[in-house]
Amino acid sequence: MSPAQWIQQHQVVLLEELKAFLRFPSISAQPAYRESLYQTAHWLTSKLQELGFAVELLGDPPVVHAWQAGPEGAPTLLFYGHYDVQPPEPLELWHSHPYEPRIEAGAIYASGASDDKGQVFAHLAAWRYWKETQGTLPVSLHVVIEGQEETGSETLYQVLSRVNGIWESDAIVVSDTAFFSAEVPTLTVGLRGLIYTEIEVTGPVRDLHSGSFGGVVENPIMALCRILTTLKGPDGRIHIPGFYEEVLPPRHQERLSWAKVGSLEEHYQQLTGAPALYGEAGFTPLERIGVRPTLEINGIWGGYTGVGSKTVLPSKAFAKVSMRLVPRQDPYKIWASFRDYIYEICPPHVEVKVRLLHEPAPAFETPTESPFYQAAEQAIERAFGKGPLPLREGGSIPVLSALQKAAGGAPVVLMGFGLPDDCVHSPNERFRLEHLWKGIEAASLFYELAAQVSS
Amino acid sequence: MSPAQWIQQHQVVLLEELKAFLRFPSISAQPAYRESLYQTAHWLTSKLQELGFAVELLGDPPVVHAWQAGPEGAPTLLFYGHYDVQPPEPLELWHSHPYEPRIEAGAIYASGASDDKGQVFAHLAAWRYWKETQGTLPVSLHVVIEGQEETGSETLYQVLSRVNGIWESDAIVVSDTAFFSAEVPTLTVGLRGLIYTEIEVTGPVRDLHSGSFGGVVENPIMALCRILTTLKGPDGRIHIPGFYEEVLPPRHQERLSWAKVGSLEEHYQQLTGAPALYGEAGFTPLERIGVRPTLEINGIWGGYTGVGSKTVLPSKAFAKVSMRLVPRQDPYKIWASFRDYIYEICPPHVEVKVRLLHEPAPAFETPTESPFYQAAEQAIERAFGKGPLPLREGGSIPVLSALQKAAGGAPVVLMGFGLPDDCVHSPNERFRLEHLWKGIEAASLFYELAAQVSS
Repeated sequence: MSPAQWIQQHQVVLLEELKAFLRFPSISAQPAYRESLYQTAHWLTSKLQELGFAVELLGDPPVVHAWQAGPEGAPTLLFYGHYDVQPPEPLELWHSHPYEPRIEAGAIYASGASDDKGQVFAHLAAWRYWKETQGTLPVSLHVVIEGQEETGSETLYQVLSRVNGIWESDAIVVSDTAFFSAEVPTLTVGLRGLIYTEIEVTGPVRDLHSGSFGGVVENPIMALCRILTTLKGPDGRIHIPGFYEEVLPPRHQERLSWAKVGSLEEHYQQLTGAPALYGEAGFTPLERIGVRPTLEINGIWGGYTGVGSKTVLPSKAFAKVSMRLVPRQDPYKIWASFRDYIYEICPPHVEVKVRLLHEPAPAFETPTESPFYQAAEQAIERAFGKGPLPLREGGSIPVLSALQKAAGGAPVVLMGFGLPDDCVHSPNERFRLEHLWKGIEAASLFYELAAQVSS
Repeated sequence: MSPAQWIQQHQVVLLEELKAFLRFPSISAQPAYRESLYQTAHWLTSKLQELGFAVELLGDPPVVHAWQAGPEGAPTLLFYGHYDVQPPEPLELWHSHPYEPRIEAGAIYASGASDDKGQVFAHLAAWRYWKETQGTLPVSLHVVIEGQEETGSETLYQVLSRVNGIWESDAIVVSDTAFFSAEVPTLTVGLRGLIYTEIEVTGPVRDLHSGSFGGVVENPIMALCRILTTLKGPDGRIHIPGFYEEVLPPRHQERLSWAKVGSLEEHYQQLTGAPALYGEAGFTPLERIGVRPTLEINGIWGGYTGVGSKTVLPSKAFAKVSMRLVPRQDPYKIWASFRDYIYEICPPHVEVKVRLLHEPAPAFETPTESPFYQAAEQAIERAFGKGPLPLREGGSIPVLSALQKAAGGAPVVLMGFGLPDDCVHSPNERFRLEHLWKGIEAASLFYELAAQVSS
């Protein structure tokens, strides 16, 4: 039976299983949901055991590691995904409960539907297809599903430092990315690196009355705003010393590939709904996302933020600031330069502290000449009816470099099935059912094609 | 019997009465405490009735208005105060319950101890002194005590629009301000006006993944920071067009008076604990607070503000921004200029909205040549042993202008007995007992001296 036929026959049961996976509020950022991370890991364990995997839970919260040998001589693959989700806030913008999955207009809505539970589930279903129809997987397989991808992968980094070659593989496959659009199937060939920081500015030692003291001390919110606007000019250029030193111009070959995609202004305008697009001068939108580094403020807070007015001149103000890095930028060097620059530009009337919220991660590239990349290319073409475009993606999977090292330097295939309007990291996250079914099909075909690569 | 002797004999009973007043959690900002506002108003009613006042409660929450005629031909005074308090949060920083008054080291600690229950109580006690020792007040007296001073005086504004000359008086007396320090008795001769606004910036229509979209749209937090830093330069100068147009330089006489106070750098450094003082170039700290207008950010929020990291590029960012105005600045003109300037400087890649959170209020001055001001001067000199320094205060009592109009343009005497380290609007608010006793004495003497002003 072909994967497409099998999927057709199993849609109802597959959907119920995915819903069960999505019902866990496995929010890694919030300590209150620790128990839910364990419940999700145990649920995955039982699913993997049903498929014949030997499963172990490593660290806290657990990294799920599963192993199953394929036919003699078949290549070894390592599948990587994550079972944790982003905090669902702001809750009032969700049209239904983030952990009670809802099917509407051909999509499933829930926190984690696309990032990454729905995509992990596409592989779970593909393995089940192979076990049920052939009795065996076509390849030997390591499965690594962690519960801290959204918060820095601390446990997985620890696990990776101890695996000592046991996870050596011929290729790594990850489904945690998106197509360029529904009409343009895509294989991601590069991810940006990530540095995530928090800035704390202190002015007066206690909150003051803004009338009695306004005028004689610096306001820490204003000082923070000055620091933030100094980091990046109105032209989109980042002012951290040495920030662009190692950044290469876009490659000619990639510019050709991007040119095929057509008018992007309209595409991004539609996806974001911003009054106007904006970005670093001299680069197209795809270049700004793919090969240019960025600096974004992810959050800011200070003073009175409730209803109505309070005439306070606050003691403290905070911001979360992250940077996305491109190949050759050294994340530790950039972090040090960022930190030192903030200390340098901080006004003398306030105090500033800067800290990392997780391990800095470098950018990442996939070698398109790898036969495993080509297997993914064919699998997508057969499932989605159109060959994928190689494109860089602006997001990050920070732990990938360390994972690749632990797998003996294996090439990484980024075969994601999401769409840019899936609202990942936002209210009303969804995964299109068509992409779920075709994703399962593409994953099933990929393992078959990968099995044919001579090791 | 002199006021000092009478106070000495009544300390225990007076303190018990003040404690009863402070036990009401009369928080006007929080709807849950509505009932407590009524209880406080009823408590004041019974105290005033005991002293022979005719009392009426006006509006919701009630403005307490009381009236008592003095001797034939005596001048009519209007006393203004407020019985509401600020929200006591953050509660964990209080050393004892904010509504269970505690006496320690010569001070009474409670929410409202200094602002304004303790100071209102000094007048209640002074009236009692007159009734008990002389059988009559030396003046005719309107008493106006409202329950919304901390939240914009909405009810009092409504009441004032309807009183039609009935409250006409020869002078208004208010005790809701502070001495410069324990060693420098002070009469406040000016208050700043207040404009309180909220700014809302919208970039993309929904929260976006900061990796997938970082680089192609403007971040609304960054746009908000650019707007805020454009409003005010690093030199403390406010850039709103026309902002300083009507502002007069400090008067020579006032500069002389300020010079007496001595080194203020150290004074404010100690009070604020800021790493360094900061303010508009070319002005001393007292000038910055007294005769220079300011612009402060009272609150800011946007994006992810929880624990850990979330890689969001938010849709919206907000700030609360207030301005303190000095005499001659027209609050409506400044508000319009502020609003238009923000629309002008807002980057084209985001949308901005600005709104007023309450009625703009002009600055306020006391004529020091008024005999009622001079009566207050003498009363303070006799009670505190040292003549008061005329000083401007940076805070605002927004409703005073409307109150003055309702009282037929009477001069306002700002005879406050607080101290700058009373922690008003902050945890562990207190009122020094010495200031309570001498405040009652000064108030008692003031009514006597005011009675001698020929009307």
